[in-house]
Amino acid sequence: MLNGEKHIPRPLRWAMIGGGRLSQVGYKHRSGALRDNTAYQMVASAFDIDATRGREFGVNLGLAPERCYDHYQQLLEEEAKRDDGVEVVSIATPNGTHYEITKAALNAGIHVICEKPLFFTSAEAQEIKALAEAKKLIVGVTYGFSGHPLLMQMRAMIANGEIGEVRMVELQYTHGFSANDSADKFSEAQKWRVDPKIAGPSFVLGDISTHTFYISQLVLPQLKVKSLLCDRQSFIPSRAPLEDNAMVLMHYDNGAVGRMWASSINAGSMDSQSIRIIGSRASLEWSDYNPGELKYEVQGQPNQLMHHGMPYLHESALADERLGALHTEGLAESWANIYLKFAIAISATQRGDQHTLDNLIYPDINAGLEGVRWIENCVRSADNGATWVNYQ
Amino acid sequence: MLNGEKHIPRPLRWAMIGGGRLSQVGYKHRSGALRDNTAYQMVASAFDIDATRGREFGVNLGLAPERCYDHYQQLLEEEAKRDDGVEVVSIATPNGTHYEITKAALNAGIHVICEKPLFFTSAEAQEIKALAEAKKLIVGVTYGFSGHPLLMQMRAMIANGEIGEVRMVELQYTHGFSANDSADKFSEAQKWRVDPKIAGPSFVLGDISTHTFYISQLVLPQLKVKSLLCDRQSFIPSRAPLEDNAMVLMHYDNGAVGRMWASSINAGSMDSQSIRIIGSRASLEWSDYNPGELKYEVQGQPNQLMHHGMPYLHESALADERLGALHTEGLAESWANIYLKFAIAISATQRGDQHTLDNLIYPDINAGLEGVRWIENCVRSADNGATWVNYQ
Amino acid sequence: MLNGEKHIPRPLRWAMIGGGRLSQVGYKHRSGALRDNTAYQMVASAFDIDATRGREFGVNLGLAPERCYDHYQQLLEEEAKRDDGVEVVSIATPNGTHYEITKAALNAGIHVICEKPLFFTSAEAQEIKALAEAKKLIVGVTYGFSGHPLLMQMRAMIANGEIGEVRMVELQYTHGFSANDSADKFSEAQKWRVDPKIAGPSFVLGDISTHTFYISQLVLPQLKVKSLLCDRQSFIPSRAPLEDNAMVLMHYDNGAVGRMWASSINAGSMDSQSIRIIGSRASLEWSDYNPGELKYEVQGQPNQLMHHGMPYLHESALADERLGALHTEGLAESWANIYLKFAIAISATQRGDQHTLDNLIYPDINAGLEGVRWIENCVRSADNGATWVNYQ
Amino acid sequence: MLNGEKHIPRPLRWAMIGGGRLSQVGYKHRSGALRDNTAYQMVASAFDIDATRGREFGVNLGLAPERCYDHYQQLLEEEAKRDDGVEVVSIATPNGTHYEITKAALNAGIHVICEKPLFFTSAEAQEIKALAEAKKLIVGVTYGFSGHPLLMQMRAMIANGEIGEVRMVELQYTHGFSANDSADKFSEAQKWRVDPKIAGPSFVLGDISTHTFYISQLVLPQLKVKSLLCDRQSFIPSRAPLEDNAMVLMHYDNGAVGRMWASSINAGSMDSQSIRIIGSRASLEWSDYNPGELKYEVQGQPNQLMHHGMPYLHESALADERLGALHTEGLAESWANIYLKFAIAISATQRGDQHTLDNLIYPDINAGLEGVRWIENCVRSADNGATWVNYQ
Repeated sequence: MLNGEKHIPRPLRWAMIGGGRLSQVGYKHRSGALRDNTAYQMVASAFDIDATRGREFGVNLGLAPERCYDHYQQLLEEEAKRDDGVEVVSIATPNGTHYEITKAALNAGIHVICEKPLFFTSAEAQEIKALAEAKKLIVGVTYGFSGHPLLMQMRAMIANGEIGEVRMVELQYTHGFSANDSADKFSEAQKWRVDPKIAGPSFVLGDISTHTFYISQLVLPQLKVKSLLCDRQSFIPSRAPLEDNAMVLMHYDNGAVGRMWASSINAGSMDSQSIRIIGSRASLEWSDYNPGELKYEVQGQPNQLMHHGMPYLHESALADERLGALHTEGLAESWANIYLKFAIAISATQRGDQHTLDNLIYPDINAGLEGVRWIENCVRSADNGATWVNYQ
Repeated sequence: MLNGEKHIPRPLRWAMIGGGRLSQVGYKHRSGALRDNTAYQMVASAFDIDATRGREFGVNLGLAPERCYDHYQQLLEEEAKRDDGVEVVSIATPNGTHYEITKAALNAGIHVICEKPLFFTSAEAQEIKALAEAKKLIVGVTYGFSGHPLLMQMRAMIANGEIGEVRMVELQYTHGFSANDSADKFSEAQKWRVDPKIAGPSFVLGDISTHTFYISQLVLPQLKVKSLLCDRQSFIPSRAPLEDNAMVLMHYDNGAVGRMWASSINAGSMDSQSIRIIGSRASLEWSDYNPGELKYEVQGQPNQLMHHGMPYLHESALADERLGALHTEGLAESWANIYLKFAIAISATQRGDQHTLDNLIYPDINAGLEGVRWIENCVRSADNGATWVNYQ
Repeated sequence: MLNGEKHIPRPLRWAMIGGGRLSQVGYKHRSGALRDNTAYQMVASAFDIDATRGREFGVNLGLAPERCYDHYQQLLEEEAKRDDGVEVVSIATPNGTHYEITKAALNAGIHVICEKPLFFTSAEAQEIKALAEAKKLIVGVTYGFSGHPLLMQMRAMIANGEIGEVRMVELQYTHGFSANDSADKFSEAQKWRVDPKIAGPSFVLGDISTHTFYISQLVLPQLKVKSLLCDRQSFIPSRAPLEDNAMVLMHYDNGAVGRMWASSINAGSMDSQSIRIIGSRASLEWSDYNPGELKYEVQGQPNQLMHHGMPYLHESALADERLGALHTEGLAESWANIYLKFAIAISATQRGDQHTLDNLIYPDINAGLEGVRWIENCVRSADNGATWVNYQ
Repeated sequence: MLNGEKHIPRPLRWAMIGGGRLSQVGYKHRSGALRDNTAYQMVASAFDIDATRGREFGVNLGLAPERCYDHYQQLLEEEAKRDDGVEVVSIATPNGTHYEITKAALNAGIHVICEKPLFFTSAEAQEIKALAEAKKLIVGVTYGFSGHPLLMQMRAMIANGEIGEVRMVELQYTHGFSANDSADKFSEAQKWRVDPKIAGPSFVLGDISTHTFYISQLVLPQLKVKSLLCDRQSFIPSRAPLEDNAMVLMHYDNGAVGRMWASSINAGSMDSQSIRIIGSRASLEWSDYNPGELKYEVQGQPNQLMHHGMPYLHESALADERLGALHTEGLAESWANIYLKFAIAISATQRGDQHTLDNLIYPDINAGLEGVRWIENCVRSADNGATWVNYQ
């Protein structure tokens, strides 16, 4: 169980790029990074495209005004001059800037934690992966739901054969907040998401389904997609070619099949993301709506409902527990868990602790790359008339 | 509200073919037909391939021994000789016999109520449809879940524009009772379902998804499938070419899209069938697990949960109510409702009451034909490598 | 599993007194009694205080007009003259008439099935019990929810020690349909329920909590209430002294405690009746809202959800199954189950089959008497300032 | 919406007394206080009765070793000598020490945030209240569940008449973690809870029901308990006279009634705390198991389910929102919200900002006092044979 005690020798000096006052996700980064003040200390920022608003915001969060920079280039430049300069930056800007900022940060010798989808193309991701390896720097990706402890329980139970052989993977991340186009016009947070120049080749596939796809990889590390078919729609025509709804079928290398449904037009739906893994003797199902519950359904037996924090869980699920049974954990705990793992990875890198790196499970550059590949394959299929494509 | 009072001048003389002691569905037919004793009276039977067992069973249900026949041909022949012979038969035999029995009954001037899937081919269904029309006889199809009153509520709300324009149709009928192959070997009820000679061209597509597909047509009478893609699997290899899992994508003529998932290998799942209709402003969702509940989710408003029997429902939903609010209705009420409508249709036909026939909504020969077409299109797609096919 | 086959040599000749066209519960009696046509045949009636309406109703249900009587006295008198006269009557009239009709029927040598609460006083119930014993006739009481199969599962699991020693009994039957007084004025079904002359000494205690109290006795036959305290309210003042809300505390003879909440002013609540039995190692919980589910919660283990019709259930729970797993059973199946047991008891009495009578579990005259005692004790406590009274 | 920006001029210098490595609640205090680093900075501690363990723990959390004190007296003494000494302490020690530590801290001029139940007697609470007023210091009480935003929604809806006149208050906080006595013997956290010398006059009434009672006062500020009756049990006899189960009935001054059930022997239950307020036209229901949901059930209308973060909520509910709709908030957000309000109150006190103090709703000394009175009245009733007592 986690209680805030340090897992690394000292907190890392951390800065945020993007994620300012108008950003909803920015607060999740800060809540995750600063949960215990033993993994990170926030020392600098370039929060906002409006530099004045960004500086005011940073000061209101307790930053020194002189370390609230106007833009990321200035941040990298000025912090490089300091002995106590930032060691790691989090990037919470619109998709279209991830690649250049990540590259610049790595080239400045700074570790990176970046929003999903990581980049526009897997070529970019491969390039950055090589750069990070050359520089011996970490790139973490904020698949922010993936830190829920019961996902480690799913992973352990599947690995232990508790559901038998995997047959089907049922994935869903849908909501209805873009059922009409009002936000497309008036919300800063939504406008760029439906603009291919800034969002990249997809809307909901990149914006939300990458989360669920990563979770499927987290709990099923042994399974690989072999081929897929994606059918995508733009129910609000002005969003085309970007999709507000997508339905994907998958074939895995072991003979299992899968489905993904990603949507922002699922009007009225409030239970957004779920994953069900069906095996030959049982199924496991989890939803981020009630992230502290895990359904374990053995064919022919009473259905079981597992709860976070209970002693019957696997060690790996209890390791990330924070509040304990009966006490509801939410999305903030999930973010805190992945941010802690980023810190452990960065610190291990700094200290050359390869053993720790080899045993740490977290959304790294490979997870980011896989997300980009997932989008690429989906878009390729969709743009080819919703036909089957080999996963590449 | 229904309370058992007669809707037709006198009960119809009814017989069952199949559905004997070992049949689970047979009891649903009897519970549906005989709910109020004002729509049908059971007067004869050919319950079983084991004639002795069938006769004993019929006698135990109160039939005269001499009207418990050895096989359906004998039933049709002998009853034809009586002044008080059967007017309508229900067919609850394995799929492969539906066509011949239905044809023989119609030719004997007897109305037919038949299990789904109706026949093996749409050509057979077209032929029988023509025969029934020529003979002025009814063919009803026991889509047994389709009589739940809240489905009429869905139909009315969609027609009234309460969800806006329809965008997506999400359908599911899955369970895990065939997750392994033990029943394939030992259960009489299961053996023939995985034998193409008796089951026809599909297993789960015909056995279960036809129910859900009909429900989608019931609530969305205005929408037509334009093209579909079906990917089917036989996780128990001995079932091939029949599928125990199928995933279908659909395109509708109005631009809406849809999905169907049919499975008998969804291990541990107990909430089998659900339908969600997503419109431009709201969604409606219903499941046969809690058939007295209907979710109405308007984007941007609190989610609503409607309950059967409540005065706020549409007249058409209250017309089929039997037990009243707070009192759980189950599958037997749904069967009773469709059986009552079959009786009203048959009686109207007998009396030449075209007005009643024109205004009655129930699973008729066209619904049966559509179910067969659904299977045919799915199988054609699946056998063509899970590719898109025009719906025909 | 039940499939309609006969459990007694021939159907009993049955009549209804009350429960006519305006009665919601009348249809439940008929649905229960006539489910399979192998336990009862309806041959006569005195359905309604409006004799013309009652006769028309009876004819519409298929009765011979001459056996649709004007009132119960006429029914008893005329049927006594027939060789094929009624053997058993069901009484679904307002409470205040139960005693006189039951007495008259028994004196006419006719078995009785009567609505709850059985009578106004336990003295009346004792008198009728003696009369029934003297006449060797059955008095069954329609605790209509008590036939759900999973209640037999609860009983078996508790008897087998699967929850440990019983510590607490948590009972609830509440709804909000009398939150205001409009029905008191305009609904025939509600008016008499708040009139002490017709309803007796209680409203919700008698009208609804007797159901739940009987269920607690069904699943906990070994436990006896030792003392109780009842606090009752009339939130609609015109209902006083009859309560529309009551809260009861109980002490059992083994040291266990209990609570009951009965209410008709629980505004907006639609999940009316539930029972939770807490033992030293586990709890069992059941609700009539989802009567096919049973929660089994062992402390320190994943919560379990059991489903009706599954092979893992106790034999006694499967014996009353009708539709099978995945197929929703509702209140009508529960009524059919208790009506079948009434028929088995009556037939066994007729045939002098004491063994069957000794092993049959159903709501008999003792269960009816206990319900009246429950109300008496509650009212005595409430009228004494909501103080503890010894249960007597 | 809260995003971490400062609400007070500078973070308060804060220390913890108790709540060290073995304490589960200690981490909740830290997660609450340090959520945003703009309300508090942790500068000192006396974490543990084992001083060495406590110091090591404090250092691991980032404290300076010299400010990790051996015991609270030392902390108060040494910090008083510093210009940058602590301004506010949180007390997370066993109940029996709350009074003396609070008194000492106030006398040292330090604001106090203290665990529930605040003290053993209301006389102590009255004394401390007078002392705090005299010293112009804040005493906050960590009713840690009371910061969930939807509780403010309940308060606003009730105040606006959206449920009509309040009739019944249904309260529950139960779990099964003390169903047996193993933890009584082996768990440090449990041992003292069943020892009257350290726990005070109650176990579950104080330990858990005070949370729910405070929530009832938060949402119903206008209602006062007039009289109550408490029946308590010690199912594990060694716990006597402290109860592991208690059932309370209440009468309110407006004629409403209420119930509370507190239990630690509700075997297997995982959905611990719930509150339902029943009005003359509608009910509101909330549970900490799904704290982002609020049920609004208007009699005669579809049931409504409200979700946190949605624009249709009242301003006061949105003011405390942190993560936004679709993103699960848990107990940590609730703690952060009340800790922020404590900080705002303390800062306002320091700055003499009476307007802020007058308009701030949070669990203050009066809320702590009411919790102690609640226990006193319950115990008085229980010890008097579970009889009605006037609330005093």
